[in-house]
Formats: sequence, C-alpha cells, structure tokens
Amino acid sequence: MAKVLTSRSENYAQWYNDLVIKADLAENSAVRGCMVIKPYGYAIWERMQAELDRMFKETGHVNAYFPLFIPKSFFSREAAHVKGFAKECAVVTHYRLTADEENGGLKVDPSAKLEEELVIRPTSETIIWNTYRNWIQSYRDLPILINQWANVVRWEMRTRLFLRTAEFLWQEGHTAHETRAEAVEETLKILGVYATFAEQFLALPVIKGIKSETEKFAGAEDTYCIEALMQDGKALQAGTSHFLGQNFAKAFDVMFASKEGKQEYVWATSWGVSTRLMGALVMAHSDDNGLVLPPKLAPQQVVIVPIYKTPEEYAATVERAHLIKSQLVKHGITVKVDDRDTHKPGWKFAEYELKGVPVRLAIGPRDLENGTVEVARRDTLTKETVPMESLEVYIPALMDQIQAEIYNKALRFRTENTHKAETWEEFLDLVEKGGFISAHWDGTPETEKAIQEETKATIRCIPLDSIDEPGICIKTGRPSNRRAIFARAY
Amino acid sequence: MAKVLTSRSENYAQWYNDLVIKADLAENSAVRGCMVIKPYGYAIWERMQAELDRMFKETGHVNAYFPLFIPKSFFSREAAHVKGFAKECAVVTHYRLTADEENGGLKVDPSAKLEEELVIRPTSETIIWNTYRNWIQSYRDLPILINQWANVVRWEMRTRLFLRTAEFLWQEGHTAHETRAEAVEETLKILGVYATFAEQFLALPVIKGIKSETEKFAGAEDTYCIEALMQDGKALQAGTSHFLGQNFAKAFDVMFASKEGKQEYVWATSWGVSTRLMGALVMAHSDDNGLVLPPKLAPQQVVIVPIYKTPEEYAATVERAHLIKSQLVKHGITVKVDDRDTHKPGWKFAEYELKGVPVRLAIGPRDLENGTVEVARRDTLTKETVPMESLEVYIPALMDQIQAEIYNKALRFRTENTHKAETWEEFLDLVEKGGFISAHWDGTPETEKAIQEETKATIRCIPLDSIDEPGICIKTGRPSNRRAIFARAY
Repeated sequence: MAKVLTSRSENYAQWYNDLVIKADLAENSAVRGCMVIKPYGYAIWERMQAELDRMFKETGHVNAYFPLFIPKSFFSREAAHVKGFAKECAVVTHYRLTADEENGGLKVDPSAKLEEELVIRPTSETIIWNTYRNWIQSYRDLPILINQWANVVRWEMRTRLFLRTAEFLWQEGHTAHETRAEAVEETLKILGVYATFAEQFLALPVIKGIKSETEKFAGAEDTYCIEALMQDGKALQAGTSHFLGQNFAKAFDVMFASKEGKQEYVWATSWGVSTRLMGALVMAHSDDNGLVLPPKLAPQQVVIVPIYKTPEEYAATVERAHLIKSQLVKHGITVKVDDRDTHKPGWKFAEYELKGVPVRLAIGPRDLENGTVEVARRDTLTKETVPMESLEVYIPALMDQIQAEIYNKALRFRTENTHKAETWEEFLDLVEKGGFISAHWDGTPETEKAIQEETKATIRCIPLDSIDEPGICIKTGRPSNRRAIFARAY
Repeated sequence: MAKVLTSRSENYAQWYNDLVIKADLAENSAVRGCMVIKPYGYAIWERMQAELDRMFKETGHVNAYFPLFIPKSFFSREAAHVKGFAKECAVVTHYRLTADEENGGLKVDPSAKLEEELVIRPTSETIIWNTYRNWIQSYRDLPILINQWANVVRWEMRTRLFLRTAEFLWQEGHTAHETRAEAVEETLKILGVYATFAEQFLALPVIKGIKSETEKFAGAEDTYCIEALMQDGKALQAGTSHFLGQNFAKAFDVMFASKEGKQEYVWATSWGVSTRLMGALVMAHSDDNGLVLPPKLAPQQVVIVPIYKTPEEYAATVERAHLIKSQLVKHGITVKVDDRDTHKPGWKFAEYELKGVPVRLAIGPRDLENGTVEVARRDTLTKETVPMESLEVYIPALMDQIQAEIYNKALRFRTENTHKAETWEEFLDLVEKGGFISAHWDGTPETEKAIQEETKATIRCIPLDSIDEPGICIKTGRPSNRRAIFARAY
C-alpha cells in the first residue's frame, strides 16, 4: 500500500497535519480557525475527559457551568488580564438577523444592537469571580472547588489542528480559598494531577515547573506548568495551574469574614488542560505509519482480523475471532472484530496501523489448526505467535507492557534530548539541534526577550525540582543561582 | 423552621423559581438570560448525560464536535430553517477589543470587523450538513450516526431558569441515511430512547407523538416529540426527534452514489434534549418542602444524620453512620454522612428535604441500643424504624420502590388530568382546569391558530398510539378522523 503520510523526517509539520486528518481525528471547518473533532478523535478526548474528571472528583472538586458570554466591562477590571485577552476576542454585538432586502440573504439587524457587547469567554475568571462575590460571605463558604468543562474562543491568527484553534474544548478549574498557603497548595495539587495524568495516561513524561514573569498567565501571581518534549525537539506546554493571589477577588470585590471576624479578600487559583493534549499525544508517540496510542486512551485496544480464502475459512476464523473477543472483553479490554468481507487483510492492517490500535490479532486457517494467534504490536511493529489458550492472560499483560514501554521510549527520547548549555555558543548549537536546554539565566525579562528574538527559544519553565546552583547567565554573563529550561515551543 | 419556598398553590411559577435557587440548582447570571448551573444542579445534569450517552452508544451512535460558530450565509440556505432561527441569534461581528481612549475601558476595535458575520449556533444542522458534504460520497459512507454534547444560544426575550434560557446545554444528534425508511426508523428509535429515559430515569410518563405543521421544527418534514404534564396542569415538551427528509441535503448539496450507481440526496434526522429536562424534573415531582428526586438521578441517594447530645453519643452515632455507609456503598448507593457538629439535626433534615435526597437515615442513642435506624422517605415524607441488620437489603429495594412510586404518582396525576373534550364549551372548561385535552381538530393551521389565540392552548402532539376515530372538530365542526392532544404549555 502506498504511504499515506508525509514522513516525519521530510516535513514534521506536514506529517502531523496529514496524520490528524488521515487518522480521522479532526479536520478544518468552514469557519476560520475552528476545527471539527471527528468521532475517532472525540472518542480519545472522551477518554481523557473521563480520567481527568475522575481525578478532579477524587481530589474534592465538583463541576458546574457558567455562561459562554462575558460582558465587555468585566474584562477591564483586572489590568493584566485584559492586556492578555482583549486582542483576540470574538465579540457579540447584535442579537438578530433580518432579511437583506438589497442584497438578498440575511444581514445583521441594526435595531438589535446590544447595549453592552458580549465577549465569548477566552477563559472564565471574570464571569466566575463576579459570581463568587454572591456566593462567599464567610470563611464557612470556603473553599470553593469548582471545575467546568467548556468551549472557549481565542481569535488566534495562525491556527493548527488541536494545537492552536480559535475555538477549543477544555476544562477550567476555579477555586477560592481562605489563605494564600491553601491556594498555593491547591495550585500545586492540580499540577500534580496533571503530571500524573500525562505520565500515566498520555504516557508522556513532563517537567513540572514555574513560568517566568513574561510567560505567566495574564492575571496570575504565579503560573505552574507541565512541559513535554515532542519528537521534533520542540516543547509543548501540556497544562497550566495558576496561583492568582487576590487579583480577581480585588477586581470583583470578593471578600469574606475570616474566623477572626475580619473582612479579607479571597485567594484564588485557576487551572486548565485542553484539546491541545490531543496534539501532544499525536506528536509524542506516533510514527510514519500513523498513530501510536497508549492502550489506556485507545478507543479500540485490540482489533481482530480474520484471514481466509474460502467461505468455510471465513466462517471458522470469524467464529474464533468472536470467541476471543468475548474472552478479552471480560478483562475490560475493548475489542473490535473486523469481519468485513469488502476489504482485504492488508488494507485492514494498514488502516489499524494508521489509527494506532495498540494490538492487532490475526487468525488464519493455520492458526486454527495449531491453536495459535498472530499478535502484532502497533508501537514496536513486532509480531509474535501466541497460543490461543494463553491470550486471556497474555493480552491484558501486554496492554500494561505497551503502556509502560511507550512512556519509557518517550522518557528516553527526552533524556537524550535534554542538555546543559554553559556558554552562548553551546546554547546556539543546542537550539538548532532541538530539545530541552538547561541553562543559567540572569532572571530578567530583557535577557529572556533577547534570547527569544535571537533564537526563537523561550523559557519553558524553572523546574520545581531544580537545585540552587550558582552560575552565570549564558546570554549576559551576569550571576544566576538557578537554571531554567529553554526550548523552541509549540 | 420557617418555610423557605412559596407554596405551589399560592404561586406555582414563584415556587419553581424559589426552588431552583434555594435548592442550589441554578441562578441567573450577570448576562441577560444566561444562567449559572450550580454544582448540585450540574451533578443531576451529569447523571442525565451519563445515562443518555450510554443509551445513544448502545444504539450505535458516536460523539463528535462541530464549531460553535456558523457563517451567516449558511442560514439562508434552508428557507424554513432561517425563518425559525434568524430572529433570535447572537451574532459575532468583530474579533478584537481595544482601549477606549475617550471613555476609558474597552471598545470594539472597528478595524477588526469580520468579513462575514458568525452566528452562535442555535442548533447545528447547517454547519454539520456543510461538513457531511465532504464525508459522504457513496452509500458505503452511510449511515452516519453522530451526536454532539454542546452549548447553544437562542436569544429568547423572556427567560426562565432551565426552561428557557438564552444559552443552554443539550445534545443534538445528526444522522445521515440512504433511504427515507431508514431515516424515519432512526427518528422513531430515538423517540423511543427519549421516552424510555424520561420514564425510567426522570420517572416521568410521556406521550409520544407527532407535531402539527405549525409546531414542527424549522426545516423538518416531521417532528416527533415526547410531552409531559407538570403539576400545574401545563404541558412541557421534553424532547424532539426530527425527520428532516432531504431538506438539508438539498440545501448543502449532499449527494451519494447509491448501490444502483445513481446520485441521490441523503436523508437526515436530528434530535435533542436539553437542560430543560432539569425544569421538567423539578416541576413534575417536587413539593412545597423542596425537591423530590428520583433515586436514579439523585447525586446523593441516602444521607445519614447522627442524633446526639454528648460527645460520647456523637462518637458512637457517627461511627455507626460510617459503618452503615460502607455497607450501602457496596450496593452502588451514594451515601453522605452529615457529621457536622455546627448544625442541628432539624436544620439538616430541612436542608436534605429541600435538596430532595430520597432517603434520610437518623441514628440516635436509642437506635444504637435497639439496633435500629429511622428511615425517612423524601417522596412520601413517611418514617419507619428498621433493624440495622436488614438495611443492606432494605435500602436498595427501597430505592427501586421510590423510583417506581414517583413514576406511578406522576402517571396517576396525568391520568386524572387527561380528558376528552367533545364540544367547544367542554374544551374551554377543560383548558381552565389544566391538563391534557384530547379533542378532534379539523387539521388546519387556521383552526389551530384560532384555538391558540382564544385559549392559549396549543396542539402538543398527535399521539402515535391514537386510533382512527371519526369525529367533528371542536372549534369548526368540520370532520376529523383523529384526536390531537391540546394543552397550555411551557
């Protein structure tokens, strides 16, 4: 079969786009910058949602839903926030269409102009903190631990499927606390949830760290993040957790009576991951043949393909396939039997490789005779012949093994592509090679900007587990006491 | 404790609004017509979603996601559709805010005007059928059985929490088929799913029927619906399933090569239920003390309240409460132990009555001595003393019993409030009393309109199980061969 994808080495960006489309994950829509998430892509996203939702609930959070619209004036309340988001907002100005007598079709009805324009939420801090004002009077009303699953819109000029789209799906947590310490603890707790999710489900090793002043969220005191490395050596921010201090409480006048009877501003966090994780998943593990999905997120974990020539062989292999399916399903494994007589086995093999189904079983007449099955792994593209009677033990164990090995492979890749730079020359050299660069930096936004302008590399984060270590800034030679992680990034 | 709700007899509309707010289901937001769904309300909606999603998947449907925005021009394509929705659309005209130098704050940036305005989806037929054009070439690409969970916006002038809001949450199914027969079958299959869901989970009996021409969906050939009766005698449309014929396929030029090799237009259905079901749930079963929730949708099915005076009694009753919880949880029952020492039992009793927790267990020192528990049912407000050791059998059975009895009560109410009208005088009399009225109608939109103008009653549906029965129209005296169901409605 002809290769359906551009290879990674040829053009990584094109490979990614080809793959997202050919594997039926998503496609561009008729609306600029907005995507259609197709059923196969959405099924993976649903698995991510289910796991994250479970983890949020296990850590005491509940879901709620706030309006899509934010009154324009709310944005002006928090100075940094407005600066960050006003430039890329979809704005609703009218509430009616009417017949266009001159040109035919429809036009906006000028008599239906809103008194105050409404912004489609790019993030919901403002509308939520305006609501929390009514919910919080006393310390007894705290903490509030709310998450929302929602769509948001940021009018990005250059978009890419999943990675950067005008509309995207996400979850946004918004919590309210009595004390700074409690809010910081929440921020870090969620960062931990995100890192655990990335490592255990996406099979993606991440660096937990804190953003520089330049890179932090518009309105946050501190932004924590998880940063992952893609196969082309570029970094991808996979999730952020913000300590918002009292910024939004002050902007929306949210105070509470403390245990001591004083009126105090409430402390806040917010945190989110989005359908961008779909992009991370694709770019971290997949290959020139198609998707490689970790079993824990694969909509179909096993596909069974019967191999036959005669109608008798068809009947016998399909029967066996369904028997095996019924055995595996008992172990919580999702199995599809592809018994379509309209497609050849070779076509099916290529299709499931493209779709990243972790394990493919093939059963032919010889297998029936010998009591065996051919087991093919998608991640390694290796095959083995396994006795039929051991499948019930073999396959569930193989799922765990694949999940672990995909993670380990990504971890090895990251280790091999993380380097220390001690001089500006080394840094320039490493930037061209790609990967994470651990380097001293003098801590100023000016130097950060100079480095970015010259190399397109940004500070991904200052890792939480980094140690105090005196050194000199690679760019300015000024003293530094900690390394930051630099990379070109998505 | 003082009554927190207006009584139903005093003012039903006020009772409903009080209850939605006091039971922490939802509240109005700062944005006109948009609500905040609070965690307790959202938890009920999540249960509805989970069950419906399971039922859709069991009937072969998959989820996907289409853009929030619809290009204005798409609306003009289907004539009836545009007529139905253009008058209540939120329209995005700009994509940027900028500093307002004159007045301070922000203003819409006039230089960021969209070439074509975007409508926030009021429903997604147009954007989806524009997408399906690229997905469908041959009969092999059919059927497409897709559902979407999403927010939609209809700029309603008069809004009420859950029942009619500018933004609401819903699911919308959009399917594509080879033949008329198959699409009609799908339409009716989903109607069956909705009816089953309403009866088994909402505990709400519904009439399955077909809408009159006047009441059908803008763009449909036929609209099927489930209609429920609320306690005030008004009807509520709880879900609709539309047979769209080839209307959208023609509007968006979606053709397929049939098995016979001919180019044919694709047949379509669409169907949806929304957060309006929350309103139906509240209005169907609740009473002057608060919510009455069917156990299958209650976020907490059982609450245990310890009764004590001394610290020793507190310790002993709370310990027993947790023991009982651990026993019930094993049977899949959600249990909360309210061991807060800051609130009195009476306060807690009233709180859980308001919140509609189906069963309340109270354990005092005497119960510990006697090995008993007081079991209070929310729906009947009755109490029983039950031996501790039988709870594991008693409570799960009680859940089923309550679920069934809430349904039966609603069914009895509907039966008692469904009447036949044979004359116009009878009809007028029955309209004032409320409830469903089964009456002959001459089948014309003119008569339907005249009846509505005079009585505010509309045709809810022509029931699917109605029989051919010659009669005369209650309004015009013209011949009729079937009865329709009339009611005043939400």
